Amino acid sequence: MTSKPDLTPEEFRRYGYQVIDWIAGYLDNAGSYPVLPAMQPGDLAAQLPAAAPEESETMDSILNDFDKLIVPALTHWNHPRFHAYFANSSTGPGILAEALCAAVNVNGMLWKSAPAATELEQVTLGWLRQWLGLPRDWFGIIYDTASISSMHAIAAAREMADPEIRRRGSAAGLVLYTSQHAHSSIEKAAITLGIGQDNVRKIPVDDQFRLQVADLKSAVEADAAVGKKPFCVVPTVGTTSTSSIDPVAAVAEIAEAHGMWMHVDAAYGGSAAVVPEYQQIVFDGVHRAHSLVVNPHKWLFTPMDISVFYTREPEILRRAFSLSAEYLKTAEDTSAVNYMDYGIQLGRRFRALKLWFVMRYFGHLKIAQMLRNHIEWAQRLTTLIRAHPDFEVVAPTPFSLICFRHRGTDEQNRALLERINATGKSFLSHTVLNGRYVLRLAIGNIATTWHDLEQTWKTIQNESHDTIHFHPENT
Amino acid sequence: MTSKPDLTPEEFRRYGYQVIDWIAGYLDNAGSYPVLPAMQPGDLAAQLPAAAPEESETMDSILNDFDKLIVPALTHWNHPRFHAYFANSSTGPGILAEALCAAVNVNGMLWKSAPAATELEQVTLGWLRQWLGLPRDWFGIIYDTASISSMHAIAAAREMADPEIRRRGSAAGLVLYTSQHAHSSIEKAAITLGIGQDNVRKIPVDDQFRLQVADLKSAVEADAAVGKKPFCVVPTVGTTSTSSIDPVAAVAEIAEAHGMWMHVDAAYGGSAAVVPEYQQIVFDGVHRAHSLVVNPHKWLFTPMDISVFYTREPEILRRAFSLSAEYLKTAEDTSAVNYMDYGIQLGRRFRALKLWFVMRYFGHLKIAQMLRNHIEWAQRLTTLIRAHPDFEVVAPTPFSLICFRHRGTDEQNRALLERINATGKSFLSHTVLNGRYVLRLAIGNIATTWHDLEQTWKTIQNESHDTIHFHPENT
Repeated sequence: MTSKPDLTPEEFRRYGYQVIDWIAGYLDNAGSYPVLPAMQPGDLAAQLPAAAPEESETMDSILNDFDKLIVPALTHWNHPRFHAYFANSSTGPGILAEALCAAVNVNGMLWKSAPAATELEQVTLGWLRQWLGLPRDWFGIIYDTASISSMHAIAAAREMADPEIRRRGSAAGLVLYTSQHAHSSIEKAAITLGIGQDNVRKIPVDDQFRLQVADLKSAVEADAAVGKKPFCVVPTVGTTSTSSIDPVAAVAEIAEAHGMWMHVDAAYGGSAAVVPEYQQIVFDGVHRAHSLVVNPHKWLFTPMDISVFYTREPEILRRAFSLSAEYLKTAEDTSAVNYMDYGIQLGRRFRALKLWFVMRYFGHLKIAQMLRNHIEWAQRLTTLIRAHPDFEVVAPTPFSLICFRHRGTDEQNRALLERINATGKSFLSHTVLNGRYVLRLAIGNIATTWHDLEQTWKTIQNESHDTIHFHPENT
Repeated sequence: MTSKPDLTPEEFRRYGYQVIDWIAGYLDNAGSYPVLPAMQPGDLAAQLPAAAPEESETMDSILNDFDKLIVPALTHWNHPRFHAYFANSSTGPGILAEALCAAVNVNGMLWKSAPAATELEQVTLGWLRQWLGLPRDWFGIIYDTASISSMHAIAAAREMADPEIRRRGSAAGLVLYTSQHAHSSIEKAAITLGIGQDNVRKIPVDDQFRLQVADLKSAVEADAAVGKKPFCVVPTVGTTSTSSIDPVAAVAEIAEAHGMWMHVDAAYGGSAAVVPEYQQIVFDGVHRAHSLVVNPHKWLFTPMDISVFYTREPEILRRAFSLSAEYLKTAEDTSAVNYMDYGIQLGRRFRALKLWFVMRYFGHLKIAQMLRNHIEWAQRLTTLIRAHPDFEVVAPTPFSLICFRHRGTDEQNRALLERINATGKSFLSHTVLNGRYVLRLAIGNIATTWHDLEQTWKTIQNESHDTIHFHPENT
């Protein structure tokens, strides 16, 4: 109908089908790529032109370059033996929803600017709240990442502690508490918000890497005694290094006694609460939180990016950020939620759509079963590693992340990790626990099977044999 | 190859083709939908189940609901007569890139976690930098929205002013300057960063809605005289209300004299700098900035969300945010850029891919011509409106946004806007200038033609006739 200078409908269909075919093949064969590309920094950039074209190029050449240049330079997060960081998943329904989201291209800043975006966000977050067993009256909002979700939590905490800060600036005297194993985004948020790193207390952890409540209590009391204002505490359900679970209920006691905002960082571990038999274990005490973050793009089979934030104090969150410019005022300002009032970002993609597709396509039972499998496989693999004389498991495995090491030196473990990853067959990452170099093996991809884990375990043992026994000069 | 519980490759193809067909039809017929849906808050939510399904649902039912329930509840940003806010564009190449981005689903936090994501971001931002005529050595990074880009700019400014704030917190004494017409995100960033609204000076504008340099100078001097620290100034190239262009070169003089960081908010207007004959006009003085934001998702035909940030002080930006956890350390930390070091968000979608597709598919000449058309049509329509005895144009039209009003009362203009939007044929928004209610008509969608603008102008005149002449009780 239109003569716009875009792909014609026929061209869009032709290249769209090609893209769909490519994706179908890719998702089916992700395991045939090296997980990590064998390349050095700059290798891809050197193959690309230094300037953009003046004239149009064809979709054929662009798609060809994608396949020939870009894909070989990717780390394959869809690979069933991607076990680094937290393994996540792209899924068919989520990908199709993202294509539709890009097509309708709405900005859900206001109800009026895209009513379906606002209402589907309310509905899907209501659904997820039920799956997670959270209180009915909690308000939900989607942000892009957990870093941003947690920053909003801490900003709301700041607003609760001192509503004048918004106007006056300067958060002098406010102190935030979290554990030594909290995600770096908590400290980054404190830097961003003007709290300052000096006012972040990183409470020591116990031998299972959980925040020590007695230390938290004395730190809070010591600060209060010298006139500082403890304003926020952030326990984690599923820390990044080891997936440990802080004692949320005991932390809540202290938060309540001192009038602090408690934000639970469950970006990774929160997803496990959709499995009925794990809900009480992983979310014990969470109903006492002021806010919670859980990332469906981590372990709920939804493509990047989508971070879900719940709070029982939406009015405080709104007060912390609301600023309404004349050009954004609408007749529905009092009768509908305008999500832009609850955050920093004015531009808001229609992220609820992919969560709605994923929750409906799989359903609660199937999603719970996938998570249950991941957790059970992690327990089984933990048992195998523990039984091997050369290896030790160095942290509990409450979810699907295993922390282990060869009984050799740190250097041997570092070399072992490099050799494993250089095979291209599996990709693991590392951390440091109690001063020792530790390997991390995360299970979270929808394509991963128990057979993949057996393969990875075989690769680990083979490479360990080569690294450690055949190369004594490394010891 | 795998037996994962996702769509099979055959199913993905079948439903993928359906989605592609739907998008092809939608983009071709976006003009056949009412731009604004005729609905009340809650209408969509009432049609959706209160709980997510326990069992799987079929893709057929999900896609059917998308078409039957979601789409009718959308505001159609792709409609060629969407003239509200800043009109933007989804395009075929951008949509296909988004599908591929969701499929590969990489997190570009580190070079190692997705080398192609990092290197393509460097390459495409180098290309765009050339199109915009920016200095060769400026560092580019992609964030999600201009709100976040500008917040990073102001955080870097804070770091430059006082590197101790990161550690100590409290930005007491720092003062930020912008105009009364700056985007609300600047003030929101000041709130977030602990600068405080009291320390944001909103400098008055001249009769063309441009920051008045004499007022800026005296405000800065007055603050400095009482011991405050002017640390940042944010001029705008294309303000949200009227698209006015602040005198960036003159602002730079003051910024340099006082050692302030100058951040240029060109989120909307910056795109016009890719048109050679407009570059000098819209970017006069911009090379003296410390940072600049321009949003390809606004006026460069790239789907939401992508905001491009350039700075000549990447080390200061990095110092403001860098925090490296052990589990994120890699062997390439010194030889490659890890973009996570330059921002708050750890999770980073592969956003460069869609910009690369769009820049290549259209090429510089065609993109420049589309923007040139939008600007020229805006001038032509401005002339028509100005010539009409009942209407007045109330601000200059430097880009493709027209601010105008009926010569009647504010109430009449408000009623006129409601009537225009209720037709479903065109969607305009409003602002308030010098205390008067003003209509905003933005041109930026790739599907818009001069014929659409004639239609919109006809609708405006028809509705104005009905509103104002036939309903004297409204006057």
